[in-house]
Amino acid sequence: MPYTDPLSLAGRLADVAGTHSLGSFRTRLQVDLKADASPVTLADRAAEAAMRALINEEAPTHGILGEEHGRERIDAAHVWVLDPIDGTKSFITGSPLWGTLIALVHQGSVDLGLIDMPVLGERWIGRPGRGSHCNGQPVHTSGCTALAQARVLTTSPDAFAPDEWAAYDALSRRAAMRRFGGDCYGYAQLAGGHVDLVAECQLQPYDYMALVGVVEGAGGVITDWQGRALSIHSNGRVLAAATAALHREALSWLATVPDIAA
Amino acid sequence: MPYTDPLSLAGRLADVAGTHSLGSFRTRLQVDLKADASPVTLADRAAEAAMRALINEEAPTHGILGEEHGRERIDAAHVWVLDPIDGTKSFITGSPLWGTLIALVHQGSVDLGLIDMPVLGERWIGRPGRGSHCNGQPVHTSGCTALAQARVLTTSPDAFAPDEWAAYDALSRRAAMRRFGGDCYGYAQLAGGHVDLVAECQLQPYDYMALVGVVEGAGGVITDWQGRALSIHSNGRVLAAATAALHREALSWLATVPDIAA
Repeated sequence: MPYTDPLSLAGRLADVAGTHSLGSFRTRLQVDLKADASPVTLADRAAEAAMRALINEEAPTHGILGEEHGRERIDAAHVWVLDPIDGTKSFITGSPLWGTLIALVHQGSVDLGLIDMPVLGERWIGRPGRGSHCNGQPVHTSGCTALAQARVLTTSPDAFAPDEWAAYDALSRRAAMRRFGGDCYGYAQLAGGHVDLVAECQLQPYDYMALVGVVEGAGGVITDWQGRALSIHSNGRVLAAATAALHREALSWLATVPDIAA
Repeated sequence: MPYTDPLSLAGRLADVAGTHSLGSFRTRLQVDLKADASPVTLADRAAEAAMRALINEEAPTHGILGEEHGRERIDAAHVWVLDPIDGTKSFITGSPLWGTLIALVHQGSVDLGLIDMPVLGERWIGRPGRGSHCNGQPVHTSGCTALAQARVLTTSPDAFAPDEWAAYDALSRRAAMRRFGGDCYGYAQLAGGHVDLVAECQLQPYDYMALVGVVEGAGGVITDWQGRALSIHSNGRVLAAATAALHREALSWLATVPDIAA
């Protein structure tokens, strides 16, 4: 099927990835250590290879930036940004909170973001300015405008440098509730109106570009910790909030951390 | 249906609780603050009331210890220990990792434990010495015998006193991997062989008695931080491990924390 619209191709990419990843979930995994010592499974690599083959067949002029197999035609007008299994540690420990992340970037801006949760059977798709949906149902961020009322989430205190943690710790202790765990699913919870703020560090473009589509489509705000739009050249610090007012209040805590280069 | 066997009644109790809890998941919740400031929903209370009604109808001589509605006939030979929604904060933030916990305690010892995960469609049932199952399939803890190879999990660093956290932090930094989040589901991951060690504090009997059945039935070891068997009078510190050897190694880190009264 030749490339016609991004929604259709994104959906088929998620289907392909899910087949590979679900097939080895909770089986005896061959776990490998990459150069950065993060765990990676053969399922991860096989899923990304299958996604790349589909893009190269249906949209051969599009670029690809993936976690496992690097960059192809990265200067193309359209670039697909892929993470077949976000939350590899969740995957390895039998938690259902891992997902496939897919973004389509057009001239540097996110046109579409997709968070697929194969175990949960939830597919979150969003397009900035054009809405977000979970399994076809429209979703919206909450109306929370103040940190003191906010439900705040991050994956792990271990994924922060000391000065980053000090800022996040101070922020999150002023929230109504703070929670840990979730990887990409935290941003789906935000898009669905169940969490009001997520902040993380040390993310890669394939970890956050898809989130931009889902969060902005749902009415939220997502930037780096200096309030700048996210791109594939960002520094890996991500702040997502339900409303502009809550985002501004959170920035007043996080933007004090010295900026870092991407 | 009069009381005949604990498996049947436990299953029907989980069914009743799941109907109430799933019905209000991700809806506009009426959140209340209890005396200890933990969030509690009307769903929680309604689910427990329905479970109690079923026990009082089918096994009127049995005792009941529940989170929301206190104690009845607690000196009976058989006592049901109930938590309709373990992981209320997960529930409130739209995460699927909350569950119903049911234990049947006979003369002080756990006869049966059940962890039901309504969103995931997983029911974990275990009986010490008689095996554990997830949706009817037998499950077993991993064979991990050394902390350096272990996948270690706890719900949140916020659920420890400073000396408890210092001990858990030192232990978990020596593990192969440490993760946060999960509430009761961490113990299901352990019973399924996907996590090797879970340690937590500040738990109540209705938080941990069901875990004893599932973990011990799957071949694991679960005690307090001094290595003593858990009872409804324990002090709320829980250590669960895949093997006796791993449990011993973990105790050498945790038993150094001064004991506290229940």
